[in-house]
Formats: sequence, structure tokens, C-alpha cells
Amino acid sequence: MLKEAIYHRPKNEFAYAYNENTLHITIRTKKNDIDSINLIFGDPYNWKDGSWQVRKKSMAKKGSDSLFDYWFTEVSPEFRRMRYGFELSDSKETVYYTEKGYYEELPLDDTAYYFCFPFLNKIDVFQAPKWVKDTVWYQIFPERFANGNVKNDPEGTLAWGSTEPTPINFFGGDFEGIIEHLDYLEDLGISGIYFTPIFKAASNHKYDTIDYFEIDPQFGDKETFKKLVSESHKRGIRIMLDAVFNHSGYYFEAFQDVLKNGEKSKYKDWFHIREFPIQTEPMPNYDTFAFTPFMPKLNTENPEVKEYLLEVGRYWVREFDIDGWRLDVANEVDHAFWRDFRKEVKAIKEDVYILGEIWHDSMAWLQGDQFDAVMNYQFTSATLNFFAKDKISAKQFTEDIQHVIYSYPKNVNEVAFNLLGSHDTERIQNTANFDQNKIKQMLAFQLSFPGSPCIYYGDEIGLTGSNDPGCRKCMVWDEEQQDKELYNHVKKLVALRKNNPLLANDGELSFIEANDQTNHIIYTKENDHELLVCIMNHSKEANTYTVPVDLEKGYRQYKDLWNDESHTLESPSFEVNVEPYGFRFYQLTK
Amino acid sequence: MLKEAIYHRPKNEFAYAYNENTLHITIRTKKNDIDSINLIFGDPYNWKDGSWQVRKKSMAKKGSDSLFDYWFTEVSPEFRRMRYGFELSDSKETVYYTEKGYYEELPLDDTAYYFCFPFLNKIDVFQAPKWVKDTVWYQIFPERFANGNVKNDPEGTLAWGSTEPTPINFFGGDFEGIIEHLDYLEDLGISGIYFTPIFKAASNHKYDTIDYFEIDPQFGDKETFKKLVSESHKRGIRIMLDAVFNHSGYYFEAFQDVLKNGEKSKYKDWFHIREFPIQTEPMPNYDTFAFTPFMPKLNTENPEVKEYLLEVGRYWVREFDIDGWRLDVANEVDHAFWRDFRKEVKAIKEDVYILGEIWHDSMAWLQGDQFDAVMNYQFTSATLNFFAKDKISAKQFTEDIQHVIYSYPKNVNEVAFNLLGSHDTERIQNTANFDQNKIKQMLAFQLSFPGSPCIYYGDEIGLTGSNDPGCRKCMVWDEEQQDKELYNHVKKLVALRKNNPLLANDGELSFIEANDQTNHIIYTKENDHELLVCIMNHSKEANTYTVPVDLEKGYRQYKDLWNDESHTLESPSFEVNVEPYGFRFYQLTK
Repeated sequence: MLKEAIYHRPKNEFAYAYNENTLHITIRTKKNDIDSINLIFGDPYNWKDGSWQVRKKSMAKKGSDSLFDYWFTEVSPEFRRMRYGFELSDSKETVYYTEKGYYEELPLDDTAYYFCFPFLNKIDVFQAPKWVKDTVWYQIFPERFANGNVKNDPEGTLAWGSTEPTPINFFGGDFEGIIEHLDYLEDLGISGIYFTPIFKAASNHKYDTIDYFEIDPQFGDKETFKKLVSESHKRGIRIMLDAVFNHSGYYFEAFQDVLKNGEKSKYKDWFHIREFPIQTEPMPNYDTFAFTPFMPKLNTENPEVKEYLLEVGRYWVREFDIDGWRLDVANEVDHAFWRDFRKEVKAIKEDVYILGEIWHDSMAWLQGDQFDAVMNYQFTSATLNFFAKDKISAKQFTEDIQHVIYSYPKNVNEVAFNLLGSHDTERIQNTANFDQNKIKQMLAFQLSFPGSPCIYYGDEIGLTGSNDPGCRKCMVWDEEQQDKELYNHVKKLVALRKNNPLLANDGELSFIEANDQTNHIIYTKENDHELLVCIMNHSKEANTYTVPVDLEKGYRQYKDLWNDESHTLESPSFEVNVEPYGFRFYQLTK
Repeated sequence: MLKEAIYHRPKNEFAYAYNENTLHITIRTKKNDIDSINLIFGDPYNWKDGSWQVRKKSMAKKGSDSLFDYWFTEVSPEFRRMRYGFELSDSKETVYYTEKGYYEELPLDDTAYYFCFPFLNKIDVFQAPKWVKDTVWYQIFPERFANGNVKNDPEGTLAWGSTEPTPINFFGGDFEGIIEHLDYLEDLGISGIYFTPIFKAASNHKYDTIDYFEIDPQFGDKETFKKLVSESHKRGIRIMLDAVFNHSGYYFEAFQDVLKNGEKSKYKDWFHIREFPIQTEPMPNYDTFAFTPFMPKLNTENPEVKEYLLEVGRYWVREFDIDGWRLDVANEVDHAFWRDFRKEVKAIKEDVYILGEIWHDSMAWLQGDQFDAVMNYQFTSATLNFFAKDKISAKQFTEDIQHVIYSYPKNVNEVAFNLLGSHDTERIQNTANFDQNKIKQMLAFQLSFPGSPCIYYGDEIGLTGSNDPGCRKCMVWDEEQQDKELYNHVKKLVALRKNNPLLANDGELSFIEANDQTNHIIYTKENDHELLVCIMNHSKEANTYTVPVDLEKGYRQYKDLWNDESHTLESPSFEVNVEPYGFRFYQLTK
């Protein structure tokens, strides 16, 4: 037994409250090293004749990444308190693993040996808005989605789609354009829109805010935005805005005042200015986003700045009824700020979704006190590496994606913002080298994976583009130029996900096959009455797979959800032939 | 190289801000498995010709527990942001370890591979009050320290020390008694007093609060308490009170109202009552501390309760100028409550010390947003196991104690409340089977270890007692019955610690020897100009040890701090003979 590989620590993805009654417990061991694990647990105050009273519950091996197995069980402790340890067995020995280390015999004279989940306080439970689990997002870069009103076009606006996007050109996208195409989005079936920034700013991307309380005039006015929200809500589409609180724009009034008045400015402590006079060249002598002089970092520890930005957070929820805030460069802003931000915006609208932009491991922000989710670029990277880039094998993909899954609690994974691309990345068409089958398969994976998936505008009709600014092309509205087949594919996936909860967040996910020879994967999701079997053949050859079924669970029918064909199950397995880069979703029922 | 043993994760003891400029980075590897480790790090936005610009810094193996080595370095990133990975080498290979796994070549095309410390925001830095590092605490159980005024004795008070303590008897200790003995405490040299609860309550231990805004009359009145605080402050002694917020007493007015009015009580949501009518037998049908009907758990999520208790927290700081709050059963109260508690009491007095009672791994409370420290029972247990119980060997002790050290950031360890016993444990006399040499040696260890040590009242004069209630005996004031030798030993240790910062929190701690044959340990602390060498001979035989010295660092003198003898260093080592269960502190200077 490799003790060095064994890991458990409470109050993170290894031990957390899934809901107000249930604790989830996971332990990590070396891959294929342990035969069985029991959780040993009890109420810390339940003693009899000088001996702590414990119970035992078997844990299930739920998944694996490249080095480790992950074992799981859940417990609902009657008095919401628990101490616990692990009984680990391999062919040679049984040992007890506790917070104080390893024992050959279970020590029952003291609970201090054990891991501790002290009390399941409801207020500390990670609780994202319920609707997020059932949402399919659509990301819109407003300058490039649709131009509904040429009157608000900025000076020098180019004809729609007439040329490649650059960091500085404008094409005139606006709210009226979006409103005109809400029927399109409703037809596609999406249920949430994430807008990159819409507030007054100088650039085409608007990440350089000038005024956090004003709509950028090139997009429209507040009335039009209200209409956009209400028209979206009518269609069951929620609205998320982008809060750029890490930094302001260069032309933000407060920064302009500091530029003008230097140390005498009443805003001098709104930023992190290292010395006066301010200079922008050769390097800014104030903190910035990256090294961009046009994005001075805001001092979110300054109570005035904090209150200003919190009011921004409250204002757009209170006055415009938005449903979510996406937080730009979220991890460079202090945790203390985000804790208050959460309290303030949720006090106005309890089920606002708070989504942080973090590209790295984000557990420190997902403890229930800060964000509901992060932009899951870890999902993105694993998924693109396999489906689009062919950079990793089937086996490594399932290991990598499981590594992402087991880095977070289940209630976090259920609302993870799972994207394949964004305004900050190359488009999937380019990444997949324009292979439509690979792209369709990858979308099938994204839309059958837990979490809250997001489609980047235009990906559904085959829009292309390399990294920023290439990925910010004008949306194509000429139906002749849209890939309608791809559109219908996405539309069908979105509808299937909506109508089959197992394709979304219902059931327990398992990767049951990953074969590097045939380069296929099979994963399942199962609840009390149904089993979903997903097969992805990521190879140039058609292949036949044998799907095993546990008949003892009572499964008698299987249905190809994509082709809407039902079959009777007559043996404890069935055969499936899948075309190159094809996929199947089978629903097994009793 | 055993990859399964390698562990690092940011935003906990492995990567944290030590102060507003400095990041501490630690990585764990299998014991004796790796030859060298370099930290590879850079600013995430520092790119040149498409390649991320990194630097390299060697990490030092700082210590080990039973299974793992811990490697450390510190970095002060110019722009307060850092991405980083590790270059690990053994005799066979060099690999790069990142957030995304292991690589043979360092990937420099994307910073997303790397571990991320996104931004060093000052407000998120764990910052305990500076004075705590230099404090030696003394814990007083007020009912049993000294009776200065018989007029406030509760009915049935027994003659001081006339009999053994029981869960229900009273001896009349009070504030006037404490004030009378402040000179005694000043002579002992302690600089902080932690009082178990002093608020109005029914029991002798007062953990069953009746009124959080009143002093228990058996201890005195508010005026007398004010005098106790001011007289203590005059002597440089800080005062910490005990906040019992997890539960109230049965006779707390709000609970009495619920008992009386049931569901109609306006306080019915102040507790967690599972059903009405309330019953206490055979089991309480409301949440309690443990299963004690006399301690109903408070509903700290209820805004009214929260505000009530926060005002308690503020009141005693604001009106009585206390210096610290010890939080009873702290881990069963919600995190959200403690975050606000910290804000509220620190807003009144910035350098109040917040100490949680948690017996287990406490990292989740020590991130800077909740507590400054916990009662370090993990230190207690390792220390007693070696010095008092002879339950573990020298080697296991150094492994266990290092396991505690490497479970927390350095700035957390510097203010850890390191106790050998309390009102909740057997006294050290009993644990050490009344062996005075072992006890003296253990105290020498405690008072030469980092953190904020605490002496339980009476331990300094040899008071005995088994577990609660035995450990709550009346303090002995008859000097004939006090162990004056032990008293002088403790006094000398406290004074030495005060006068030699290396004995407290200065310098870097290393365990350089742990020998199971001779059962001795040697640990050192070193700063830029001095080296402290501590030797503990935990065996029945006198032994001679050779202490190696790096003459290249310029050390030329060594001084036996305990015996005040100085020597000139003439070779790269010196010999020391230490008596059975003896210890030495050597100060090496240049």
C-alpha cells in the first residue's frame, strides 16, 4: 500500500457539505493500489463504556486520473457533526488512516485522532442558483453580434463583416441587433446570454471601462437594455453581464483626475500608484492589468472604491434585473472584496449567478463565500486537447477530465461554466483544423457533460477565427453562409440536454472505457431509474463496441437518443457500430 | 521519483503571502526521494518573442515528517503576481511539475500550465497582532485561582482547596483574588492571561452562559473587572476572555423564554429546535453542545442572534479594553459568523487576538479572514507523547511535530497557542507521572518552540490533577506547598525566551538530530547573525553530543544560555555532556 499517495483533507473537494443534510467524503489513493475502503465515522460525542461509537460504510472507487484513484461515499450525520477515518485494505494488509496518521488498530479512546467535519452549518454550504444547472449559455461579444441601429455606430464603423477584426476597428454591433435576433437564440434553445462588457468604454471590447453606470452609447441606451433583458426573460433566457473590477479604463473619470491632479487628486488612493508624477512609458509606474497602461488596477481595498464597485454590482441587478455577473480577472482582486460582493448582490436578488474568470485551480474561491463558478478553462483545455487537437489519447483525456472533476465538489461541478472557447481564445473551427466531424463530436461531449455549458457566438454556424482579435469576427447572418448543418446539430444537442436530465447534471458520471487503440471513450450517467451511455469514437475508423449492461438492475430497453430508435435488451450487453468521429447517446430504462 | 507523493496547492500552507511583499512556497515530496528542487517562476504577463520569461530559484529541504520531505523558498514578486512550477531532480531524471501535471521539458508557450498566485492583495494576508509572537500566556480558571473576597462567594462555597474539585462544587475564586496575585504573575514573567468564562452562568466553569453582558457575581462586578484589566495592562499583561457562542446556558433568558412559550416564543428561532414541545429527556430534541441539554446550541445564522453575539464581541472590547477573544467550540459555529466577528471586533481594536478552540486541522479557519490562531492541541499531543508519556521515540516526535509545523503557514505558527494542558485535559504532572525532570524538559521545549506558549495556572508550582474535574483544583498559595524549584525553572525559561528572540519566533527552525538509541533531539534556530542550538536528552543516561558548527558562517563564540557560560569556538564542532532528561540552549555568535 503506497501511503505517500493517500490524501484526504476536510473542508475542500475531499470533504464538503453537498446540501444541508449531506456530507460528501472522497479519499485519493495510488491508482490500482487498494482493494477496498470503508469510511469509519461517528458523532464525536457518542461514547459508550469509554469507547467512541463508530459505524462503517463502504466507499466506491468513482474514478481515476493519471496517478490516483478517487473513492467516494456520502453520509447524512444525524446531528450534523462527524469525526471519521478510513479503513484501507489491499491483499496484504488493512490499515486505518486518520488525521494523525496510520494505525494498525482503530484507536477508539479519543476522537482527536480523526478527521473532523465539525458541524454542517447551512449558511456555509456552497449553494449556487438552482437554474444554472439547467442553463445552456451563449456568449455574445456585443460589438460583433448584430447591428440593429446604424445611428449609434461609432465614427469610422466599417461595413458589417467587410474585413477582419483588429484590436481597434468597429463594426457597430448593438442591443437592437441582439433583440432582433432573440428569436434566433430562442430557436437555438439557449437559456442564458453572457455579454462581454456593455458599459461605456473606449475600445471595441469595452474591458477599459470609462463609466460603470452607463451603457456604451454604441450599444444603445438604458431603455433599450431594459427591453433586451425583458425580451430575453420572456423567452426564458437569463442575462449575465461582465464586471471589470480588477481595473478601470484609462479614461475612467477617477483615473483622469489622478492624471490631472497627481498627488492632490481625491482619487489618488483609488489606484496603486507607485510614484508621482504618473508615467505610462516605458512602463506604467502604477499597477495595471498585465502591463497595459490603459487598464490601471483599481485599489479594491480602499473603502471608497469598494463601495463604488459594490454599488455597480447592486445597481445593474436592482435596476435592470440581470441574472448574473461574470467577474473579469477575478483572481487578481482580493477575496475580501468578493465576499462582500456576494453578500450585496445576493441580498438584492437571491439567485444571481456569480461567475469568476479564473483559468487555474479555483477551490479557494468556490467555498460558498465567494463565487458560484469559474470559467472552466481546465475543462476547455482537456477537451480541446483530445477532440480538437488530437494532442492526447483517449486514456489521457479521461484521466485529465477526471482530474478536473475530482478537483472540485460535486455541487461546484454542477454549475461550472464549461466553455470550448471565448473572446480570449482561438475559435473551435481553427483549433479543430476545420474538421466538422470532430467539432460536432466535441460539442456532443460538451453538451452531455455536467455543468453549465456555454456556446461562443457563431460557433454554432461555423464562424472561424484565430486568437484575439481573430476570434471576434462579425456574426454571419446570411443564411447561405451559415453552416446550417452545424446549427441544427447544436440545436438538437441543446434540446436533447434539456429533455434528458441525465445529459445535463442528473446522475452519477463514470468513465467506463478509454481505449488508446480504437481511441474511443464510453462514459455513463446513472440515476435510480435510468442509465445514459455515451460513446465517442474519436478515430478515423468505424468501430463496433460492446456495451455491458447490468441486467440485475432491471434495464430492459435501450434507446438511441440521437436517432430516436428504441430496442429491447435481450442479453447483458449490446453492440454498437459508430462511424468515424461519431457518437451515440443511449438511454437505458427498466 | 515517486510522483504520487509530490504535493503542492496554492492558497494554503503550501503557497501563501507571508507579508505584503513576500510569498512562501513549499512543496512536499517522498522522504529522501529527491536530490534538488528549483522553483521556476515569473510574472504571468512577462513575455518575449512568444516565450514566457521565467526565473529559477533553488529550494531548501526544510524538514520532514514520517513520510515526506518539505522544500521551501520565498519570493517577492515585483508586480505581486506569480505563476510557477517546480523542477525536481533525482539521480535518474529531472521533471517539471505544474498544476497540469508533469513534463519532461518546461512548457513556455502558455502560463495556464502553471500554479498561480494571482495577486498579493494586502487585505488577504494573514496578519495576527504583532504582540502575540512575544507573549507568554497564563490560563486562569477563575473559580479556582484565588479567593480575594469571601462576600461574593456563592452559597455552599467550600474552604479553599479543602477537597477535590467536582463538576458541581465551588471554592470562591474571584477577580479580587486575581488582582492580589498579579504581582505573582508579573514575577513569573507572563504577558497575557486567558480567562475561561467570566460571564454570568450557573456552573463553576461558566460555559453555560446566562447573561453575556454580565460578570458572574461570584467573580465580582464590572468595576472590579475594569480594575483587573487596567492593573494587568500596567504590568504589561494582556487579557483574553472566553466567548461561548456555540451554545448558551439552559438559563439564558432567550432559552428560558422558549421553554416557557414554546413555538410562540419570539426566541424560538434563536436555537435549533427540532420539534415542540421541547424535551430534555431521554435526549434533548434540540441541538446542543455534545448531548448536554444544559447547553442549547445557538442559531448563529439567525440575524438577531448574530447581531446579539457580535455586540457581545464588541462590548467587552469597547468597554473593558480586553485584548483577545478565545472562542469556545469554535469549529461548530459557522464560518460566515466568524468572518463578521473578526471584522467587527478588529474595527474596534485593530490588534485584538482571535483564538479559536479547534482540536483538529484548522487551516480552513486560518486563511486571514477568521481566526488568528487555534489552541494547538496537535502540538500538545505530539509534545506530551514524547516528553511526558514516553509513547513515541525521538525520531517519531520530530516527525510528528514537523507534521504540525508543515500543516500551517509560518505566520500562523508564529502565533499558535501552544499549550501543554488546559481545563479540558489532565495536568502535566499526572501525564508525566510526576517526573519533575521530564516536566522541566518539556517546559523547556515548549518555551523554546515558535508560537505563543501558554502555562495552565498552577502547572508552574506543581499542581496535580487528572482529567476534568481533577485538573481544576484550587491554586496553592501556601509557599511551603508550592514547588519553588519548578516555579523558578518556569520563571527562568520565560525570562530567557523574552530576552532571546531566537528562543521565541525569530529565526528558522530546523530539527538536525533525532536519535532513537540515545533518545535525544537537537533543533536549531538561525537568523542572520545568531544560531541557537537546543539539545534535549530524553533518556535515563547522561550523554555527550557533538554539535557541528559551520565556521564559514563566522560563528566564533558559543554560550550556554541556561548556565550563562561563554566559550570560544575553536573547531567546527563542540562537545556537550547533558544529564538524564536535561537540556541545553547554546547561543552561537560571530
